[in-house]
Amino acid sequence: MNYFLGIDMGGTNLRFGLVDEEGKLKWSSRFPTEAGSPKEEIFGVMKKGIDQGLQEAKVKSYRVKAIGVGVPGCVDFKTGLIYTLVNIPGWENTPLASKIKEVFNLPVFVDNDVNVMALGELFFGAARGARNVICITLGTGVGGGVIVEGNLYRGSSMTAGEVGHIVLEKDGAQCNCGNRGCLERYIGNRYLVERALALYAENAGVKIPEPLSPESLTQAARNGDQVAKAVWKEMANYLGIVLGGLVNFFNPDRIVIGGGVAEAGEFLFGPLEKGLKERSMKIPGNLVQLKKAELGVNAGLIGAATLAMGSKNSLKFKV
Amino acid sequence: MNYFLGIDMGGTNLRFGLVDEEGKLKWSSRFPTEAGSPKEEIFGVMKKGIDQGLQEAKVKSYRVKAIGVGVPGCVDFKTGLIYTLVNIPGWENTPLASKIKEVFNLPVFVDNDVNVMALGELFFGAARGARNVICITLGTGVGGGVIVEGNLYRGSSMTAGEVGHIVLEKDGAQCNCGNRGCLERYIGNRYLVERALALYAENAGVKIPEPLSPESLTQAARNGDQVAKAVWKEMANYLGIVLGGLVNFFNPDRIVIGGGVAEAGEFLFGPLEKGLKERSMKIPGNLVQLKKAELGVNAGLIGAATLAMGSKNSLKFKV
Repeated sequence: MNYFLGIDMGGTNLRFGLVDEEGKLKWSSRFPTEAGSPKEEIFGVMKKGIDQGLQEAKVKSYRVKAIGVGVPGCVDFKTGLIYTLVNIPGWENTPLASKIKEVFNLPVFVDNDVNVMALGELFFGAARGARNVICITLGTGVGGGVIVEGNLYRGSSMTAGEVGHIVLEKDGAQCNCGNRGCLERYIGNRYLVERALALYAENAGVKIPEPLSPESLTQAARNGDQVAKAVWKEMANYLGIVLGGLVNFFNPDRIVIGGGVAEAGEFLFGPLEKGLKERSMKIPGNLVQLKKAELGVNAGLIGAATLAMGSKNSLKFKV
Repeated sequence: MNYFLGIDMGGTNLRFGLVDEEGKLKWSSRFPTEAGSPKEEIFGVMKKGIDQGLQEAKVKSYRVKAIGVGVPGCVDFKTGLIYTLVNIPGWENTPLASKIKEVFNLPVFVDNDVNVMALGELFFGAARGARNVICITLGTGVGGGVIVEGNLYRGSSMTAGEVGHIVLEKDGAQCNCGNRGCLERYIGNRYLVERALALYAENAGVKIPEPLSPESLTQAARNGDQVAKAVWKEMANYLGIVLGGLVNFFNPDRIVIGGGVAEAGEFLFGPLEKGLKERSMKIPGNLVQLKKAELGVNAGLIGAATLAMGSKNSLKFKV
């Protein structure tokens, strides 16, 4: 069996995973990183962590065929150059692929974290067997990865998939991106919580879950809290409006929804399924299947390894 | 030189064109059709019209290599089966490609009229040299054709490109498609004229162009009419909001705008160019080029012929 190394670079953690050709995670580990750590220190952590992993997993190093890295930001997949990372300062214009290649002497592929999650779901998760897919992650931000005819679609400057920055409310609130009324400005974690607070304020007497978060709102909804249910329903309505438009434009056969907020499960997916049908045209609306992402907390690792797998072996996987 | 026949099936006219391999229209003609004419009659008109055309154009019939047909509706490109045509009743479930093939004994390819226009612009018009393109037609309806990595993208049930049915106003007016607040419901010809009437009513004393139409509004704007200019500016604003979202999602390198309304020229394109930048993220917004369609009234014919050309000769043109 061959293995592929997935590296998931986050703002606070560096995660490593050894993934086999069938998408099974054989071993993984996590190292906290400090914002602003020198890059050489990070590469040192990578080297140590991965050597340790191979030993623990009893995998001979020659069995590892390539390395894939998912990064939270803007990257040129073809050259492995990072343009900017959202929450990790100091990595602007770093040729990450060639730096990691120096350390491990293996082929290295780097892409945006949402793109690699989409690849992971395509080959080993909820998008298996689909041709045209929109993969969405719901969390602090609202990101998306796009699959066209079974391949990852990156767009003309590798920034495709910004579902969170489609306008929901044309004269709406200012968004960080510079635009107004973006979807993310209404359903990103922070705004979801703000909205929940406002709804609880209108319903004095209903106990507010503490700390108020997407997780506690899901728990409250499970316990029958009508306000929490209304928060999820409103979010589903907003998401359905934007996804309905994308169904009309892109005519996908599948939409996969992941990220922490997807754990709201039926409270989100129930009304979303309904809203999506109402907000899209008949033929494409009837075709598209809505699914919850399957790879969960390991999506980033398995996805990064899938990127390496697909790019290394393009006969088997066209990436 | 080889030739390709383009057929443009409209609600009131059947148009034929003989197009050479360089996209030049050598000959064309137009036959009025009556709604509800028997299909056999239409095929008879095709046969007669095209035989006459070959004679007039002095093109030997063996030089014609394939036929492409653009239809206003929903069609299965792979089989050439029409599902429904918007304004031409009686063509539901007609195997159009094989019917025409019986008459002419040539390869026949059928696709949606907006798709063939996008192909025409891609190979011979304003989208030449672009990789990822959204082609939009502005008229009674607001349609779109999508090019992905230099190929026409049809989507999972061949309905991709419905730009007009992306929501602009989330709780907006009812649209014919069943949804509410769709872009088309605000900028389709009829609604554009209604909106102009309302704005003229607010500006008593300004002479209303007659008959009020996109054409007369363009003429009025040219003559300095501030209300007409405001109508175009508002339309550009609406279109910019939706296209800005698509730029963020799809990251195209070009957007091509055609259809009758595109003749408003600078009154539309000026504010649209500005709005598109404001309503999209920096990297994809700076990349995308906005262009007016170049094939004009012959877009349907040249596009249909391009469909035939590309499908017949897939080494030269990947369709």
